[in-house]
Amino acid sequence: MSSLNQIPRRIILGPGPSSAHPRVLKALSSPVMGYLDPDYFSIIEEVEGLLKDTFKTSQRAFAIAGSGSAGMEAGFSSLLEEGDKILICENGHFCERMVLMAKRLKLNVLTLNVEWGTAIDPVQVNEILKQHNDVKMVSSIHAETSTGVMNPIKQISEISHQNGALFMVDCVTSLAGSEFRFDDWDIDYAYSGSQKCLASPPGLSPVAISNRALSTIEKRKTLPSSWYLDLSLIADYWGIEHKAHHTAPVNMIYGLRESLKLVFEEGLEVRWKRHKKLASALKKGLISMGLSLPINSKIALDQLTVIEIPDGVNDEEFRLNLLRKYLIEIGRGLGRFQGKIWRVGLMGESCVPANVFALLQAFEELLSQTGHEFKKGDSLATASKILSETSPLPY
Amino acid sequence: MSSLNQIPRRIILGPGPSSAHPRVLKALSSPVMGYLDPDYFSIIEEVEGLLKDTFKTSQRAFAIAGSGSAGMEAGFSSLLEEGDKILICENGHFCERMVLMAKRLKLNVLTLNVEWGTAIDPVQVNEILKQHNDVKMVSSIHAETSTGVMNPIKQISEISHQNGALFMVDCVTSLAGSEFRFDDWDIDYAYSGSQKCLASPPGLSPVAISNRALSTIEKRKTLPSSWYLDLSLIADYWGIEHKAHHTAPVNMIYGLRESLKLVFEEGLEVRWKRHKKLASALKKGLISMGLSLPINSKIALDQLTVIEIPDGVNDEEFRLNLLRKYLIEIGRGLGRFQGKIWRVGLMGESCVPANVFALLQAFEELLSQTGHEFKKGDSLATASKILSETSPLPY
Repeated sequence: MSSLNQIPRRIILGPGPSSAHPRVLKALSSPVMGYLDPDYFSIIEEVEGLLKDTFKTSQRAFAIAGSGSAGMEAGFSSLLEEGDKILICENGHFCERMVLMAKRLKLNVLTLNVEWGTAIDPVQVNEILKQHNDVKMVSSIHAETSTGVMNPIKQISEISHQNGALFMVDCVTSLAGSEFRFDDWDIDYAYSGSQKCLASPPGLSPVAISNRALSTIEKRKTLPSSWYLDLSLIADYWGIEHKAHHTAPVNMIYGLRESLKLVFEEGLEVRWKRHKKLASALKKGLISMGLSLPINSKIALDQLTVIEIPDGVNDEEFRLNLLRKYLIEIGRGLGRFQGKIWRVGLMGESCVPANVFALLQAFEELLSQTGHEFKKGDSLATASKILSETSPLPY
Repeated sequence: MSSLNQIPRRIILGPGPSSAHPRVLKALSSPVMGYLDPDYFSIIEEVEGLLKDTFKTSQRAFAIAGSGSAGMEAGFSSLLEEGDKILICENGHFCERMVLMAKRLKLNVLTLNVEWGTAIDPVQVNEILKQHNDVKMVSSIHAETSTGVMNPIKQISEISHQNGALFMVDCVTSLAGSEFRFDDWDIDYAYSGSQKCLASPPGLSPVAISNRALSTIEKRKTLPSSWYLDLSLIADYWGIEHKAHHTAPVNMIYGLRESLKLVFEEGLEVRWKRHKKLASALKKGLISMGLSLPINSKIALDQLTVIEIPDGVNDEEFRLNLLRKYLIEIGRGLGRFQGKIWRVGLMGESCVPANVFALLQAFEELLSQTGHEFKKGDSLATASKILSETSPLPY
């Protein structure tokens, strides 16, 4: 078999992973340490502190050794027991994954299904919770990358608690890219991914957990089916006593630590603004190219832009040309959106002006070959103007 | 909080993780790629081929995004269904972990308990299987790092199949360090860890799975409780169609690929010999220092040596001195062996002559301060002689 010795050049503007910061990549290659070494404990204590600041919580935060989906599964399997009733707010592909997981765990699953491309309406959540007074937990996705929609997490959380339910949220794509306040929004469990706005490689799921959720776990009647993803065992390893659990992914943690340091060198709120500003430049550039962005701008994500594939353009051919001619990766549509949309991510280290220009220029070139009509150069001028309007960003 | 900016120097000679090869560390820091990028698929196809050669199988092999314990849990939860009967061969701490996991998954668990420090007797496995003709799977650990014992996997596998059961084996510590033959030994599922004899950082669990086991999964009546660790979904992502599952840990896979290339540059069988030769030098050096190695040499592991803590030596103080004065990490005793033994690993990149000498010299120094009597210098001379006796090894 031939070997791809050189990792190829890429501008990764898909739904994730996004590029990692060079300092993060360098940190990954530091020598391995033992996962029970007292100096390694100092490192994870530092990571815990930085994660708490990123989640904006004074409760517990740590990182699970797996992707964001591992964080999702850890939540369902640790916080609920077989037969417990859960309400899953369902408006996208990753919400569907929540349903798949919850059913495998034999939870009693209620769903609030709303049309893909629209946001969850907290009023509807309330209605269902009034009908079912035994819902143990509500779950929702903050930034749904399959549809590019932001859900009103704060309101859903409030309604969940008013009805006596815990609230779990997927912030895989939002953490460190959009406003997220674990304590203020009274969230019980939130899981993210290292590979999106945190600008680390994929492989870790940073999570935050409330004291209320931890005490729910303590009161379980049965042990969670998963030992590997048992939040209480993972919390104990990250806790004061550092009780041994599985071998920790030491080098990935070095990378995460560096990425979190970078978040606070830039400033968390400044980073949110960076994602907003660059998204605005990209979106307006795409619109001035005559493309349609189907998600209502009031609920559209910053870090992921959904574009309707124009008539007469071959989805796969276009994305392959983008990859092979311009070294740019974007995302395809998932599920019912397959063949209908493209998804362009601007997250973490991928969220820089050069990438906005590269994407717009490549789109202009490739779309002009398909007969799609627009005035060449407009999209870059539009984006450029927006990026020049505000003060420089410290990245 | 103070930040440990520099990763400290370490000679890691514990039960794992062990050091990673510099080329592996460098590979980790390559740019992130999309996990659905066609060029990334070429990389995982190459990794699959190299893993098959490492496991010595012509069936399927891939890497799970988690530690060896994730590989363990994936096996139990994917290959068996609630209520299925399993026989767990139990002679160490990690076998106990198997029992914990299997019980959480509501399997019907039988155990064959033998004294820690001794090996599983295949005759006893046979007796139990004759008494219970409905055992679906037998599981055992090849190299038990809590006791330093090698179990007769080939024979247990044969007896399992004679009695109509599948056979699953933990080769976390043995793969690429000791003889292991997945196909010849007719194993159904084997999981390993990246961080031991493979000389990669912790975080991946390379696994091999038989066609028989895959067909068992296909015939399941219920879905496994875990979506994240569902072997059939992971196999589908690594398979010809590369069906999307969770986001893959791209950079860790770069590292694993490099470590597997190194295995075959050295030669797999030569690598087994290296572990045997250096273990012999270490063990004889320790014995000539008057230390007792309690495990019978016929079943003692090469990659992990168990040492009885001499009378009058404070376990924790000794290990802390070793770490702080000589930057050497060794392992403590686990469970019933706590405070009674030390565990010294020589695995992968940690398995080099310099580390044998460093360990012996540091032990000589620290033990002489405790009043333990022996002739100084003998242990190094003994080890040195063994290492000089055979032809140079190409590492």
